Amino acid sequence: MITREIALARAQQIIASQKLDALVVASPWNVRYLAGTYFLTQKVIPDRLALVVVTPNAEPSFIYCSIEDASAQDESWLDDLRGYTEFVDRPMHVLADQLRVRGIATGRIGIETDYLVSTHSAELRAELPQADFVAAQGWVDKARMIKTPEEIAWLGKTTLATDAAIRAAFAATQIGEPQFNVGDRMVAHARRSGADGLQHLVLATGDTAFKVHAVPDITPLKAGVPLRVDFGMTWHGYLSDIARTAFLAPLQPRQADTYRRLEAVQQTVIASLRAGTRACDAYALCAKAYARQGLPFGMPHIGHSIGLVLHEKPMLHPRDETVLMPGMVFMVEPAVVAHDGVYHTEDMVEITEGDPRVLSRSADWAEPMEIGG
Amino acid sequence: MITREIALARAQQIIASQKLDALVVASPWNVRYLAGTYFLTQKVIPDRLALVVVTPNAEPSFIYCSIEDASAQDESWLDDLRGYTEFVDRPMHVLADQLRVRGIATGRIGIETDYLVSTHSAELRAELPQADFVAAQGWVDKARMIKTPEEIAWLGKTTLATDAAIRAAFAATQIGEPQFNVGDRMVAHARRSGADGLQHLVLATGDTAFKVHAVPDITPLKAGVPLRVDFGMTWHGYLSDIARTAFLAPLQPRQADTYRRLEAVQQTVIASLRAGTRACDAYALCAKAYARQGLPFGMPHIGHSIGLVLHEKPMLHPRDETVLMPGMVFMVEPAVVAHDGVYHTEDMVEITEGDPRVLSRSADWAEPMEIGG
Repeated sequence: MITREIALARAQQIIASQKLDALVVASPWNVRYLAGTYFLTQKVIPDRLALVVVTPNAEPSFIYCSIEDASAQDESWLDDLRGYTEFVDRPMHVLADQLRVRGIATGRIGIETDYLVSTHSAELRAELPQADFVAAQGWVDKARMIKTPEEIAWLGKTTLATDAAIRAAFAATQIGEPQFNVGDRMVAHARRSGADGLQHLVLATGDTAFKVHAVPDITPLKAGVPLRVDFGMTWHGYLSDIARTAFLAPLQPRQADTYRRLEAVQQTVIASLRAGTRACDAYALCAKAYARQGLPFGMPHIGHSIGLVLHEKPMLHPRDETVLMPGMVFMVEPAVVAHDGVYHTEDMVEITEGDPRVLSRSADWAEPMEIGG
Repeated sequence: MITREIALARAQQIIASQKLDALVVASPWNVRYLAGTYFLTQKVIPDRLALVVVTPNAEPSFIYCSIEDASAQDESWLDDLRGYTEFVDRPMHVLADQLRVRGIATGRIGIETDYLVSTHSAELRAELPQADFVAAQGWVDKARMIKTPEEIAWLGKTTLATDAAIRAAFAATQIGEPQFNVGDRMVAHARRSGADGLQHLVLATGDTAFKVHAVPDITPLKAGVPLRVDFGMTWHGYLSDIARTAFLAPLQPRQADTYRRLEAVQQTVIASLRAGTRACDAYALCAKAYARQGLPFGMPHIGHSIGLVLHEKPMLHPRDETVLMPGMVFMVEPAVVAHDGVYHTEDMVEITEGDPRVLSRSADWAEPMEIGG
């Protein structure tokens, strides 16, 4: 996970390079990055704003709803804690006060306009009419693109645990049991590996095999069809995200053939992820690999970075020209519309000075897995 | 659940009363309300905007990321489906095109500025410089305040199922088992009642008993302490939310006494929720009931409405003067900081023409529940 020292140093670099008097972050992920804590309620009640105010050479302020006092005191690495009372204090007023106290009511203030809703932005501008607000659009997100060794270790561990949870759930699967059971086993296994929340749980099979974001229900698992999952948990604010496809016995030759072609595509793309190449090049290469394997290709993107957000930049899509650098991590996730459903696989790849490093395979996955037989 | 007819009629009422040429909704909850479908990815990837454009006397347009094509075609009750290609089309450009096609590039357009981020708002204004944009702030949310009988039936059913899941999980609880197990049982039970996703799962006991939003971990359950959960699932876009507190055996007289006082507060507040009273009055009454029971009171709010959003308006807080009307539903959730943790209870109450109707009690809950003994 990120440390206080590195996160705040990166914020100060933004302040220096953008000639700011203050940097204000509002998105739950960047608040997590700079304050060291993530409040569950920010996800379910976005109005309950949390903000971090960073200024040069001073302890940052952490503004949050006082309902979270115990968590903030216990978990945040920031010292200047400013809890506001919900429905009494307005978060934008508390923020404006903090900026006034720091003598920068007329300063140049970078603020996350790609997270703050228009209503809040307007409120802040009214509070500080003299300030020069600049859109801190993606600045902290860009800083987050290069993961520290501690972050990569954490992401590798949690991703491997997610993959192991899927594998364990698949291994125990029986034809005829309700779809639910597979999902429940995945979640329970991941929780026992340290996950603190569910991010997403897609399960597609039988009648829902072609739906990208199907969810498990009580339907009994059928024989002879693919079972696809796309599953992620939360781990102290960091996310995991793994898709796998297995086959409910009996595995058929046509299924095995398509699966192996998809796996060949995956290995081709992974091998190409080297420092110095561009994100869009991996996409183009992937499209060619599909053609070479005789698979239809129609994906708008074939992968994404990950960390405190599910789809972080860079994205492996045709318009992202970001040059890959050591310390980036990608989820590479080709999928194919086969004759009996969408097949999907997903791996975490670390960009290094040399060969790409796969962090997500708790098992081989090179061969199609037959389950439930 | 809401029906197409009523949802669109309410949108047309907004258009008429606000003299709009178009109403554009962007929040996942209001898109769910008007389009009849909810995309899981809107929650985890908010950039993947979905929008509904309503104009007088025409079929509304549903703009969404084409990754969701299968779901939109299968689930939405709207006919004019406009999937855009992620990373190629810009959603705000697609929206502007739809408005131009409808001949209202210079019209009066209500748009959800309390959901759209500043970046998107600015993009839309640049696309349609002649349009008169007005903040459709809370308009659809206000329309959603009065639930239809079908919505109340659905909310009652899903809330009762959530309560039953907690009760079943408590009944099976054993001292010494990991906290996880309780949560896993709750989720599995609710899924079997039809829930399609997890909304939130708070579990506090032992060392975390005072943390408002603690999550379960591997720690074994201790004897003689309270076990508090706050648990919600998703049900076709609608949410459930129930908090309950039980006591790991042996139940102590002091615990039972505090629990009964909290329950007395709860019954007092519930009884007061009648058409014609104001939300803030229930809050004031609750504060008095705490005092009468000799309990410390420090809650910023004591309840909220619920539906497609966890905390819907009206809120039972000191500044919400909304007059209660039949068809509103409230989650009433007093909590108290006791000597050995926070005790919390939560019930769904329907406002009727007569007595308030409690929809959430799958069991009595009037007496403290001893578990694990």
